Amino acid sequence: MAASAIALTAGEPAGIGPELCLMLAAQPCRHRRVVVADPDLLAERAELLGLDVQLQDYDPSRPASAQAAGTLEVLPVRLAQRSTPGQLDPANAAYVLETLREAGNGCLAGRFGAVVTAPVHKGIINDAGVAFSGHTEFFAELTGTAQVVMMLACPGLRVALATTHLPLRAVADAITPELLERVLRITHSDLQSRFGLSAPKIVVCGLNPHAGEGGHLGREEIDVIIPVLERLRGEGLHLEGPLPADTLFTPRHLEHADAVLAMYHDQGLPVLKHKGFGSAVNITLGLPIIRTSVDHGTALDLAGTGRADPGSLQVAVDTAIDMVEAGAQ
Amino acid sequence: MAASAIALTAGEPAGIGPELCLMLAAQPCRHRRVVVADPDLLAERAELLGLDVQLQDYDPSRPASAQAAGTLEVLPVRLAQRSTPGQLDPANAAYVLETLREAGNGCLAGRFGAVVTAPVHKGIINDAGVAFSGHTEFFAELTGTAQVVMMLACPGLRVALATTHLPLRAVADAITPELLERVLRITHSDLQSRFGLSAPKIVVCGLNPHAGEGGHLGREEIDVIIPVLERLRGEGLHLEGPLPADTLFTPRHLEHADAVLAMYHDQGLPVLKHKGFGSAVNITLGLPIIRTSVDHGTALDLAGTGRADPGSLQVAVDTAIDMVEAGAQ
Repeated sequence: MAASAIALTAGEPAGIGPELCLMLAAQPCRHRRVVVADPDLLAERAELLGLDVQLQDYDPSRPASAQAAGTLEVLPVRLAQRSTPGQLDPANAAYVLETLREAGNGCLAGRFGAVVTAPVHKGIINDAGVAFSGHTEFFAELTGTAQVVMMLACPGLRVALATTHLPLRAVADAITPELLERVLRITHSDLQSRFGLSAPKIVVCGLNPHAGEGGHLGREEIDVIIPVLERLRGEGLHLEGPLPADTLFTPRHLEHADAVLAMYHDQGLPVLKHKGFGSAVNITLGLPIIRTSVDHGTALDLAGTGRADPGSLQVAVDTAIDMVEAGAQ
Repeated sequence: MAASAIALTAGEPAGIGPELCLMLAAQPCRHRRVVVADPDLLAERAELLGLDVQLQDYDPSRPASAQAAGTLEVLPVRLAQRSTPGQLDPANAAYVLETLREAGNGCLAGRFGAVVTAPVHKGIINDAGVAFSGHTEFFAELTGTAQVVMMLACPGLRVALATTHLPLRAVADAITPELLERVLRITHSDLQSRFGLSAPKIVVCGLNPHAGEGGHLGREEIDVIIPVLERLRGEGLHLEGPLPADTLFTPRHLEHADAVLAMYHDQGLPVLKHKGFGSAVNITLGLPIIRTSVDHGTALDLAGTGRADPGSLQVAVDTAIDMVEAGAQ
């Protein structure tokens, strides 16, 4: 396929995002790599860390090409205040959001094939008076998407979540037939369109321990989950479960699974982040654009030290590229 | 130390328990290995599977010694009905319970250093008209223990549970300060007395995703968990947390942890059983006796085929022996 352009948002300027983007430049890339950030910020951090990176102005009219090692294209968004590693400044919150908007709109307009996000700091954006609950919600709103699905992936395992950032006591009531059906349809559809899997198999966790043990440990499997799975199986979706979450993440079940659907955050992510330590990536399904992200935070204590590990950002870029290429086939 | 005697209950006679006990005999053991089961059942299964095992009558007055390869001692309990592999019979439910009682009472009387349990079938015992919710509860009642803690372990990880077999929607209300304090005290105390750890470090999960994110995703960390941890830290317990469960199971936190306390079943066990596949063991803390168990079920479909894997039972025996020896030091 022709080379595409991957937009990388550098995230919180006081965090490790800018230097992680610079570190990626050490490798060549078979697609254009466009960092959405303040070019002065990138130049300062490169100098601070002794990284030899050639920053090129992003020119959308340039023909598609691969990206040479040692180079980054930069789509400039200007900081309100010069940023010091480790020191959050609410004055730069609007800058952070503008980088996301530029990248997202660039995807919608077809200039970018995907957006890959370095970490932002939710707290400082909210402190600046802007309601912001995360990248996922931001891109859903920007693209007018009612329902998205958060999926984390690492080599050998993908885990999608039916619910995400809810207090544990709110989870059981949130698992409605409507939600579960929407989440399964999105996961199935994106595994096809974004991952090139013609007949994806999704293994579904029960909500309760032992998947409810026939109703002895909760009835949501019988009343909600099983009827939804049976209805969708009737349409040809390849769904296994509901299975007990504690025995599901073993070779017998994972070998033939393209993704696991966990009912809630801490049912699925501990094993994903254990298995995928340092190489996990966060993917938003259901958007009209491709979006991947690191699975870690801004690491303010590491910013400017050069000790941050670009592994997760590299995997996020590689995954976005795989998705771009799978979608183009 | 002097050799002790380890009692193995062979569990459901129609399941894989009897043959797993016979398979263990292939290895020598530095302690006596006493199977509590019907000797005719063991002899039949040995013949069926072509296992060359010498069955010796258990004699409590025999001096302590190691157990030679190819031998098992048998403490006889008689089946009510001859058992066929794979075919449950409620007539034998009383037999199963009697094997547990013999082993447990033998531990209380000091004849056995530990009891290791092969799987039983809860359903068939209940069908026989005996209320039975599991080994853990059985031994708690037999020994007059009000509170026990279920812990699973595999090489490199131990996970204790604050709550076990509850519907998910009942978990949040079950995490009371009283429960959490009792569970932490038992876990701390047994890590000392049973595992020889003089100052065990326990890493504690939050209840909510991101450990509640400062109250934004639930208040149980602030209202319940943190106050309990602070109080017990004041007594010298080495407790870390509450930490987000999704990032806790990574080297940074696990390296220095002796155990993780998960708030509920599917928060802690998926990662334990993923990591410890085939080598996980279930340990009951808080009992006056040492009790370990396999982490799998009766596998009726495998019974009599010789294809069952004795790995988990071997680990359960090895763990029980380690605990016996740590307690004797």
